[in-house]
Amino acid sequence: MSTSRPLLPTIVLRRHEERRLQRGHLWVYSNEVDVKQTPLKGFAPGDPVTVLAQGGQPLGSGYINPHSLICARLISYRRDVVLDRRLLDARLRAALELRESLFDRPSYRLVHGEGDSLPGLVVDRYDDILVVQISTAGIERLRDDLLAALVELLAPRAILLRNDTPLRGLEGLDTAVETVHGTLPETLTVDEGGLRFEVPASDGQKTGWFFDQRPNRDRLIRYAEGRRVLDLFSYVGAWGLRAAAAGANEVLCVDSSAPALARLEANATANGVADRVVTRRGDVFEVLRKLRDAGERYETVVVDPPALIKRRKDHKAGLEAYRRLNRRALQVLAPGGILLTSSCSYHLSRDELRVALERAARQVDVDLQIIEQGHQGPDHPVHPAIPETDYLKCLVARRLPA
Amino acid sequence: MSTSRPLLPTIVLRRHEERRLQRGHLWVYSNEVDVKQTPLKGFAPGDPVTVLAQGGQPLGSGYINPHSLICARLISYRRDVVLDRRLLDARLRAALELRESLFDRPSYRLVHGEGDSLPGLVVDRYDDILVVQISTAGIERLRDDLLAALVELLAPRAILLRNDTPLRGLEGLDTAVETVHGTLPETLTVDEGGLRFEVPASDGQKTGWFFDQRPNRDRLIRYAEGRRVLDLFSYVGAWGLRAAAAGANEVLCVDSSAPALARLEANATANGVADRVVTRRGDVFEVLRKLRDAGERYETVVVDPPALIKRRKDHKAGLEAYRRLNRRALQVLAPGGILLTSSCSYHLSRDELRVALERAARQVDVDLQIIEQGHQGPDHPVHPAIPETDYLKCLVARRLPA
Repeated sequence: MSTSRPLLPTIVLRRHEERRLQRGHLWVYSNEVDVKQTPLKGFAPGDPVTVLAQGGQPLGSGYINPHSLICARLISYRRDVVLDRRLLDARLRAALELRESLFDRPSYRLVHGEGDSLPGLVVDRYDDILVVQISTAGIERLRDDLLAALVELLAPRAILLRNDTPLRGLEGLDTAVETVHGTLPETLTVDEGGLRFEVPASDGQKTGWFFDQRPNRDRLIRYAEGRRVLDLFSYVGAWGLRAAAAGANEVLCVDSSAPALARLEANATANGVADRVVTRRGDVFEVLRKLRDAGERYETVVVDPPALIKRRKDHKAGLEAYRRLNRRALQVLAPGGILLTSSCSYHLSRDELRVALERAARQVDVDLQIIEQGHQGPDHPVHPAIPETDYLKCLVARRLPA
Repeated sequence: MSTSRPLLPTIVLRRHEERRLQRGHLWVYSNEVDVKQTPLKGFAPGDPVTVLAQGGQPLGSGYINPHSLICARLISYRRDVVLDRRLLDARLRAALELRESLFDRPSYRLVHGEGDSLPGLVVDRYDDILVVQISTAGIERLRDDLLAALVELLAPRAILLRNDTPLRGLEGLDTAVETVHGTLPETLTVDEGGLRFEVPASDGQKTGWFFDQRPNRDRLIRYAEGRRVLDLFSYVGAWGLRAAAAGANEVLCVDSSAPALARLEANATANGVADRVVTRRGDVFEVLRKLRDAGERYETVVVDPPALIKRRKDHKAGLEAYRRLNRRALQVLAPGGILLTSSCSYHLSRDELRVALERAARQVDVDLQIIEQGHQGPDHPVHPAIPETDYLKCLVARRLPA
């Protein structure tokens, strides 16, 4: 399937730096390259390259960016493989085949970077609209081939390039949001759990929707019927409206964004659950304090914050933020109630989230049992050699009855 | 709800040994006790006790066993709480309430030790039969109260004591299997996923059924329809028959136990899927080698071995066994196929299982993406401060198409 050509340019790694790649990882850091033997400065961003160990054994091939900390990403464990249109076609088809086997409706992440053997590329599918994010020079160089391949594969009504990720800056790429095929509607449509959501097309969080939490929202509906539910960091209502549709008596959705809440209300109306959904705009920490002081209690509480630890150096402060947030959430959780708490921070491990939750529980003298654990959905595959691709943690904890 | 009495006997921990308990853990190791101040030898196995830090602060109360490495287990973070009939009733009711909210049918683990705030006790519910496992002297002392409480709560037709766990030896307790209430039928009945299974009543693995894997078997049925499925370590057919019922074309179930396979065949017939299920008795490693040599390929392979690492000292050999097993399984997995691989060894971490799988993949030159991750079911709650209660790992990996 792949295209082999002899004699790609090579980079040679320093002694012992081949180990991570031999274990299947796809990234080469610039300080791992033997730049005396193979200087990086001769390469242009996105050039194809074969990577060799110090002893000359080939480790694989990929593309290079001499200006980036991650200076090369493998696309194959074989030498002299170039990511061209043919290989791109094959990988897009493999990615599509998986999603089509998993989902009834075309609402999903179609390509998840390394997890789909396409480092630097994300494609989300909103029915007949594709939203594409290119984060590396290697994929940027293939942009025209990529767009042609997507049009041929899926005949989309429109393709939006959401090239506004800060990752592009690390690769020396400009940021821009542009429609590069067809005409973009004002909103994108998502089908999930029998509901239909409209989400912002070009200025939403992520590409507009958090597909990664879908299986955890599927968990939530077990804990919704006949309950009072609190949805924190609600965004456009994915959690809250699914709880309402599953029979919650009352759902309070809290978010700091007025446009997100306006969209949530429209989604509630369109799905026939507006009579049981209330929104509240505000800072979640502050709203939780007020709810606690007012003596409000909820049988189910959803905590799905944005990444509170974005960089390793923010770990300590972020960990404390997770603990504080969960402590406040526990203070409004009824005895016997369910707390569904998440972290999408790669730099917070699953164990750390569990410990933060338990510390919070001890601080407010609440006893918990963890009854379910969730991960990112199957349209966000984890590369088994790249822990960095495994980022989403979800814990479902029950507060023990008094 | 709990019964407080003043002035339980106390044990005092050595300096700094209070930290684990302050973080919510429930176990005291004998070498953490300041035996000069509070000798253990005055205590009888199962005596109630309050645990104090070196400075005198109460850490909680529980029961003691002076002859065991884990010499005390907390049942409360408060002092002077005794696990008596009233507290036992409350905890059993709390455990039952959770299961009744989660399951339509009475087939589940009702009590999961520390995860249900009842260290030393496991109760599985097979319709109107209860199977009870007592592993500590503290619970053994409560045996009559426990049986009376279970009869009052659930009016079971029979209660079987499966007190044959080697853990009892660590507590100085005898092992025995005995029916202590009613009359035990020859087989127990399990309802799962619309199927009905009959399992051995008094000589099955665990208490007869592996309830903990239920949510992972629920995952499997997504990857069954129209496929050729291989079920390794099949036992009485939980995985294989669910795959057959979900539309697998053909299921090969492999196990080393002839009685288990006989039971599997009876279950296949009773559930109307016998025409698509074949059993093969043998050592799984050996059978895999033969299947590979014969060029057999399966679209879905289930690897659910017994714990290959039972003690920490077996870690290295066990890790190698997981790697070898998964390597062999990958050799019979068709391109585009699904490998569902598990470990119930607490001493193998989730990361180690992932790494073992990836090493195996690299050795046989197969590319994988992990699309789902599973845990023990919600009737096996994890205590958030006790990592030891979180033991079951499941990874669902897709072999990338060629």
